[in-house]
Amino acid sequence: MTTDRIYRAAILIIGDEILSGRTQDKNISQIALWLNVQGIRLNEVRVVSDDMDAIIAAVNALRTSHDYLFTTGGIGPTHDDITVDAIAAAMGVPVVIHEEARAILEGYYETRGGINEGRLRMARVPQGADLIPNKMSGAPGIKMGNIFIMAGVPHITAGMLDALTGTLEGGLPVLSEQIGCWVAESEVAATLSQIEKAHEGCQIGSYPFYREGKSGANFVVRSTDAHKLRHCVDALIDGLKQMGYDSTAGGI
Amino acid sequence: MTTDRIYRAAILIIGDEILSGRTQDKNISQIALWLNVQGIRLNEVRVVSDDMDAIIAAVNALRTSHDYLFTTGGIGPTHDDITVDAIAAAMGVPVVIHEEARAILEGYYETRGGINEGRLRMARVPQGADLIPNKMSGAPGIKMGNIFIMAGVPHITAGMLDALTGTLEGGLPVLSEQIGCWVAESEVAATLSQIEKAHEGCQIGSYPFYREGKSGANFVVRSTDAHKLRHCVDALIDGLKQMGYDSTAGGI
Repeated sequence: MTTDRIYRAAILIIGDEILSGRTQDKNISQIALWLNVQGIRLNEVRVVSDDMDAIIAAVNALRTSHDYLFTTGGIGPTHDDITVDAIAAAMGVPVVIHEEARAILEGYYETRGGINEGRLRMARVPQGADLIPNKMSGAPGIKMGNIFIMAGVPHITAGMLDALTGTLEGGLPVLSEQIGCWVAESEVAATLSQIEKAHEGCQIGSYPFYREGKSGANFVVRSTDAHKLRHCVDALIDGLKQMGYDSTAGGI
Repeated sequence: MTTDRIYRAAILIIGDEILSGRTQDKNISQIALWLNVQGIRLNEVRVVSDDMDAIIAAVNALRTSHDYLFTTGGIGPTHDDITVDAIAAAMGVPVVIHEEARAILEGYYETRGGINEGRLRMARVPQGADLIPNKMSGAPGIKMGNIFIMAGVPHITAGMLDALTGTLEGGLPVLSEQIGCWVAESEVAATLSQIEKAHEGCQIGSYPFYREGKSGANFVVRSTDAHKLRHCVDALIDGLKQMGYDSTAGGI
């Protein structure tokens, strides 16, 4: 049932490779887009290193202040994969071998050199956790209370999100419509502000760019109400027109 | 002077466009890489929406727990740009017009339609702040105590980082060396762990991939000590070799 309640999520990205700049994160954007389809709003993201205390502190801050917490990274077979241990510590439960996960891993590695200590690490879960199916590789994700523990590798995370689709309670998704305009945003800032104020329940975001030697901006109007959204977008198109600027539906 | 002291930084990304998934963040990676060259370690990243209370809370948490805090986003001319107000509130100071910033903006917009209310917004700073030069567009960044307030648009941020190069006190940069290997990381997890334990002051990160129909991994060894780094990398190459795996310098 869809209600007016707003469901809020946080993401915790775990990994030295993001903080060192080695790897460009792709999970924030893909999880954010997926959450919106589920009617869940991404409210905060944190990135911490592969450090037990840092993970525990962030997990406890985010799981208690949000409906859902999604973590990525640190669930592989190597020594730097400590996410499961940190989340178990944060929840005050021991780490146990999940028998179904063990069976999945034994099956997966049967033709790939067999199970070993490192691979068995990926069957470890906080006590009481369920699995999130992983159709891309052997090791499953983990659901522990309101925490969804996922892989760091974006295409594996994508598969886990796919498995979770439709299983989480959400509210109204945020609808958005974008229009583009060849104008410096600073030229029309007052107009944007007035139009947003006149349209309760709508937010207008302004995203400037400089291309082909000239200034432009895309304006994104967001609302959970399709009717209000339409009115606000129309008012914005009119407002820009009155200032002498044509806009392009969908953005430039 | 280079000392053993470790300098730690945090990044606060401010913007609904990141949390909605509309925009793929590029600032974390570029600031992280730049910080390392300055001998400063990126310790935590947070992303919050264009919300006054959320920004204030994150600014206060991160500025007090780190040597440096870098913010991106929310310093443009439009109504959704509230970073300066939030940081001033977090620091308990009023927002004032910075006369040098005003002069810069008046000069920049002289041939671009003139100054207006929106553009003048970009001369507003927390009282007591200094400017960070912006050679890409008119509006400067802002330095307030240990907070560096920068643009959301990555190439403008890049210009501001360039202006800050060499001006921040740092310690020893983290050196890193990567080797690649066509092996499933789960095959060699125990070896990685043993080698890391035997080489104090070195960390080994393992970053798996699946390409051309086979599993591989890049291993990144990190240390502030070039000598220790060399030893650890050599031990890793040897260890992999003993298991029958050749490695490729620089990664695959």
